[in-house]
Amino acid sequence: MSTYKAINLIARPQGGPIGPELFEVVEKPMPKVADGQFLVKQNCMSLDPAMFGWMSADTESYIPPVALGEVMRSSGIGEIVESNHPGFKVGDRVMGMMGWQQYFLTNGAGLNKVTAPLPDEAILSVFALPGLTATQGLFNVGKPQKGETIVVSGAAGSVGSIVGQLAKADGLRVIGVVGSDEKADWIVNELGFDGAINYKTDDLAAKLAELTPDGVDVYFENTGGPIQHHVFAKMNAHGRIVVCGMIADYPKAVPDLAPSWIQVIKKRLIIQGFTMPDHFGDVPALLEKLTPYVMKGQIKHRAHVLNGLESAITGLNLFFTGDNKGKLIVKL
Amino acid sequence: MSTYKAINLIARPQGGPIGPELFEVVEKPMPKVADGQFLVKQNCMSLDPAMFGWMSADTESYIPPVALGEVMRSSGIGEIVESNHPGFKVGDRVMGMMGWQQYFLTNGAGLNKVTAPLPDEAILSVFALPGLTATQGLFNVGKPQKGETIVVSGAAGSVGSIVGQLAKADGLRVIGVVGSDEKADWIVNELGFDGAINYKTDDLAAKLAELTPDGVDVYFENTGGPIQHHVFAKMNAHGRIVVCGMIADYPKAVPDLAPSWIQVIKKRLIIQGFTMPDHFGDVPALLEKLTPYVMKGQIKHRAHVLNGLESAITGLNLFFTGDNKGKLIVKL
Repeated sequence: MSTYKAINLIARPQGGPIGPELFEVVEKPMPKVADGQFLVKQNCMSLDPAMFGWMSADTESYIPPVALGEVMRSSGIGEIVESNHPGFKVGDRVMGMMGWQQYFLTNGAGLNKVTAPLPDEAILSVFALPGLTATQGLFNVGKPQKGETIVVSGAAGSVGSIVGQLAKADGLRVIGVVGSDEKADWIVNELGFDGAINYKTDDLAAKLAELTPDGVDVYFENTGGPIQHHVFAKMNAHGRIVVCGMIADYPKAVPDLAPSWIQVIKKRLIIQGFTMPDHFGDVPALLEKLTPYVMKGQIKHRAHVLNGLESAITGLNLFFTGDNKGKLIVKL
Repeated sequence: MSTYKAINLIARPQGGPIGPELFEVVEKPMPKVADGQFLVKQNCMSLDPAMFGWMSADTESYIPPVALGEVMRSSGIGEIVESNHPGFKVGDRVMGMMGWQQYFLTNGAGLNKVTAPLPDEAILSVFALPGLTATQGLFNVGKPQKGETIVVSGAAGSVGSIVGQLAKADGLRVIGVVGSDEKADWIVNELGFDGAINYKTDDLAAKLAELTPDGVDVYFENTGGPIQHHVFAKMNAHGRIVVCGMIADYPKAVPDLAPSWIQVIKKRLIIQGFTMPDHFGDVPALLEKLTPYVMKGQIKHRAHVLNGLESAITGLNLFFTGDNKGKLIVKL
């Protein structure tokens, strides 16, 4: 091969679905591998809700947006096919931010070798951003205690499904909010959640009252939307709200407002946001926390695999429609 | 005297101004002082925004509401006029929750002796609830750092004025939000705030942009209202929002909504509520923290004194109109 394909971001989303007009698929010449560099053939790319932030021009965000005309940012896993780097050899499996492209030339900064004998999809679904995010958010922000009740929105998503299973393993009552009966069935009957709320069809207040008779101690928020107000109303004194994602509001020009802070006082709540780039230095500790749950078989996952580089573009919209079933992965 | 006056709560506020129909002024026979008891003649009572919570029937609040037919709850300071208690003698000055009444019979539980040679108004304005609340909220929740910017709403109020002065003494840039030019003048020219915003007359966004060129690191929220959204929009990454009071929303049947949590994620904000009853055990430590600032003359105060027990009833409405000038105190 003398060329490879990449996808550049050429316009910023204005709200609403992600269309092909935001991207440009380009053919690039295969690069020369200089001293200290190596070339990775990417096998799988991860699609994550955080990408909407990376695509927007909001300069107040936690990391700079992708510049127009540059390769769209994403994490992925691949194999080294050429190396002039003393620390990485041909055949090594590596993971990191490689972007929407078939090949990735690098000096190794920010990439990690993958030695676990697990398929690419499992690595990206558990030991990459989703698992790290779930571990940081649940334990270090949510501070769950055995016997407490946690509600997780986006509970069948890549982060929410791990949060719920970690909490369940630690002895909490775990209720998940999902967007289909199929997902409700999966989190209850496969993952072991104590209950599920279908936010599209259930009477939210009634179902929540039924499933959280002792109120809610931790709310792990992945979605936003009307469920936020219903769960908020059920928070117990000294409750913790972990704000991880607001996918329902990302496509809106003007996001919905949040519940009044009066109850924040009365119930002495903590509402705390976090993003993983602040915690990349903590990744070894987070993996150490997460790994035992995985080894004991307490963390199941499922990947929703799309095929081919270009499938990433329309694939992003599955976050809005909720039609993804498990961690979204693009196989190259 | 064979009788004394007390005011009972007989109905709950339904939103809107506090009217005399909620209360009943009664004459009670002077009580007999049994063994282990003493009788306090109350000299000054404190009016505090927390009283709206105590009057409402919201059972989810942090302390039970005042029962209908009982003496309205309040803190005050007075002098012991009769004692059969070994630890308290006639002439001792004591402070604590004595309620809206001229005399208070007690076994001493929850009362503290006052030894500082300061007038009643100064004790109630600085070393009682306002100073303790300011100290707990600013230092233990807001975690201010020298060089940061803090915005305080209700900045001429009993808590806000102390918060701002403590922050100023610790080297922060301090901006206060007030409801009149007179209050703006007081906090800037008497208390040393770096700037003031009159929320009734200023262009909030423009004035805030002018006064907080480096953004806002700590927002100490005493009021709610539209200023909340403007300050929220100026929060810096890793900002802390201390939710202490929402006086603008207490009289509303349906409180205003709060800003979307999207920025809570992007800026990794912490929004935290607190109430002092959780921290009554920390009072010695809080006083130890607060006292040096007072001794160095860094904490000025002013009391807005009303005269006579019954003035408490209409006095409460000054919190809504903002016509109080300093700490509201009822002199008996």
